[in-house]
Amino acid sequence: MSIPRLRGVLAPAVTPFRSDLSPDRDRFVRHARWLLAHGCAGLACFGTNSEANSLSAGEREELLNALVEGGIPAAALMPGTGCCALSDSVRLTAHAVAAGCGGVLMLPPFYYKGVTDEGLFRNFAEVIERVGDSRLRLYLYHIPPVANVPISIPLLERLIRRYPGIVAGIKDSSGDWNNTQAVLDAFRGDSFDVFAGSEVFLLANIRHGGVGCISATANINPGPIRHLFVNWQSAEADALQASLSATRAVVQKYPMIAALKAVIAHYGNDPEWATVRPPLVELTPAQSDALAGALDQLGFKMPELQSGAAAG
Amino acid sequence: MSIPRLRGVLAPAVTPFRSDLSPDRDRFVRHARWLLAHGCAGLACFGTNSEANSLSAGEREELLNALVEGGIPAAALMPGTGCCALSDSVRLTAHAVAAGCGGVLMLPPFYYKGVTDEGLFRNFAEVIERVGDSRLRLYLYHIPPVANVPISIPLLERLIRRYPGIVAGIKDSSGDWNNTQAVLDAFRGDSFDVFAGSEVFLLANIRHGGVGCISATANINPGPIRHLFVNWQSAEADALQASLSATRAVVQKYPMIAALKAVIAHYGNDPEWATVRPPLVELTPAQSDALAGALDQLGFKMPELQSGAAAG
Repeated sequence: MSIPRLRGVLAPAVTPFRSDLSPDRDRFVRHARWLLAHGCAGLACFGTNSEANSLSAGEREELLNALVEGGIPAAALMPGTGCCALSDSVRLTAHAVAAGCGGVLMLPPFYYKGVTDEGLFRNFAEVIERVGDSRLRLYLYHIPPVANVPISIPLLERLIRRYPGIVAGIKDSSGDWNNTQAVLDAFRGDSFDVFAGSEVFLLANIRHGGVGCISATANINPGPIRHLFVNWQSAEADALQASLSATRAVVQKYPMIAALKAVIAHYGNDPEWATVRPPLVELTPAQSDALAGALDQLGFKMPELQSGAAAG
Repeated sequence: MSIPRLRGVLAPAVTPFRSDLSPDRDRFVRHARWLLAHGCAGLACFGTNSEANSLSAGEREELLNALVEGGIPAAALMPGTGCCALSDSVRLTAHAVAAGCGGVLMLPPFYYKGVTDEGLFRNFAEVIERVGDSRLRLYLYHIPPVANVPISIPLLERLIRRYPGIVAGIKDSSGDWNNTQAVLDAFRGDSFDVFAGSEVFLLANIRHGGVGCISATANINPGPIRHLFVNWQSAEADALQASLSATRAVVQKYPMIAALKAVIAHYGNDPEWATVRPPLVELTPAQSDALAGALDQLGFKMPELQSGAAAG
């Protein structure tokens, strides 16, 4: 039996650390529950905003197990499993499939720059072949501003033709709507699902056939983002989009990951949440206060966050 | 008792793979022996040209153990131990120190871009503090064309002042001699050793107080590079440098790692050596032939390579 395809609003769930920089399983599971209860259809855990690349493969496996053991439905999970090392990508992808995850979100190997589409094809093909499981749903992760290794449309074409059904979609975090639209146009008949990498492009993406967004700020604002996803055909859709984009603009004045954690720490009254792993640096108290003040002015809320924390 | 500081010509030893893409311990140890017997003072194994970032942490540990078990002196080793994940960097650095390695060559965490010097300082400081061993000799690895995360002079200054003796040097692979010279000038009195990242800058580096080079092409041309290192004050030094640079220029017309492996495969009559891990791609037969032909024209040789292979 095939798991239904993920669609809607997914959060690249931020990863909490204790003050000693070790991953905090309990806060992680609580945050995951809060996200699913407040608008997220799924969790793209271990994404860029999850500081996944600051976690070892073993730490990622332990945290994924913690989610499943904590009652999060595996079918709602799309963990990031793309690493620099082929062996790590195979290990994490196999682990995710065995856990029953709804998909995996796969970065290209991102250390070597200027690599060819042939080399990237071989990387993804090796992962698929070595995992060797028809339950695998692989979503490519295109984020050239960070990875500096793009996923081109000819590469997508080749992967989709070779592994139909397994190569299931893409998260486009290029920040370039023209690229997202080109991908949508190229694979319209292919059961290939396009997620925008930011809710700023959510309405445009759905209107052109996309299936949702996987966005940093879904960590803190999932309800309103879902509200637009559900009501994209309503008369108020453009106004809802403008409101989402305004909230996003306030947050992204700061380094995104530190800002998301500062917001959760503030609205959840839980200061330890602000901890990040090097090479990231947490916001200063003045930055955190200014960010919360600006969000308050927009009427921003994170409902039930404190009671959610207390319940964990 | 303190291990003498590494200096001279170090090779970022290329990592052989079997046709199934698994690391080939035996060929790796044989190549290490050949390098040390033919001009290398040490091995910066698990560098960029070693495809180290295509290896898992466990694979790196196993290969380091293979070298030591194969009789390679640990004091001659400067393995790469800098990963995206703090936990991996700590693990690999502790393993290298426990093995008695002469140093470690540490990339900055390279996924997140635009990070601050404060964040990078915290990363290196956490590794040093968690390893907690005065035998550690840490060499920073500055390679902005690939890592896209530079090691600035103010960051070096802060690390050297905080951890004198432990922060021991740098490999400058910026390809920018002005940067190398600025580092040499900045830390001239500090027992801080500067390796050029290419033998193209070897003579200039030694003349300005540097201690050698860690260069891709030392994998195939270690003897002549060492000859310049030893004879840098001779009348023929500039001619020797010109000859080294000419050889390098021929090789770097091709993707470097695939080219190095093709050369070893050709001169060692050992075709499996050409194998690379994705996302890299091996040279075509036509490229390999053209490269070998161009090297033959320069009188290039890899002495005893076949008998070295047979002895392994």
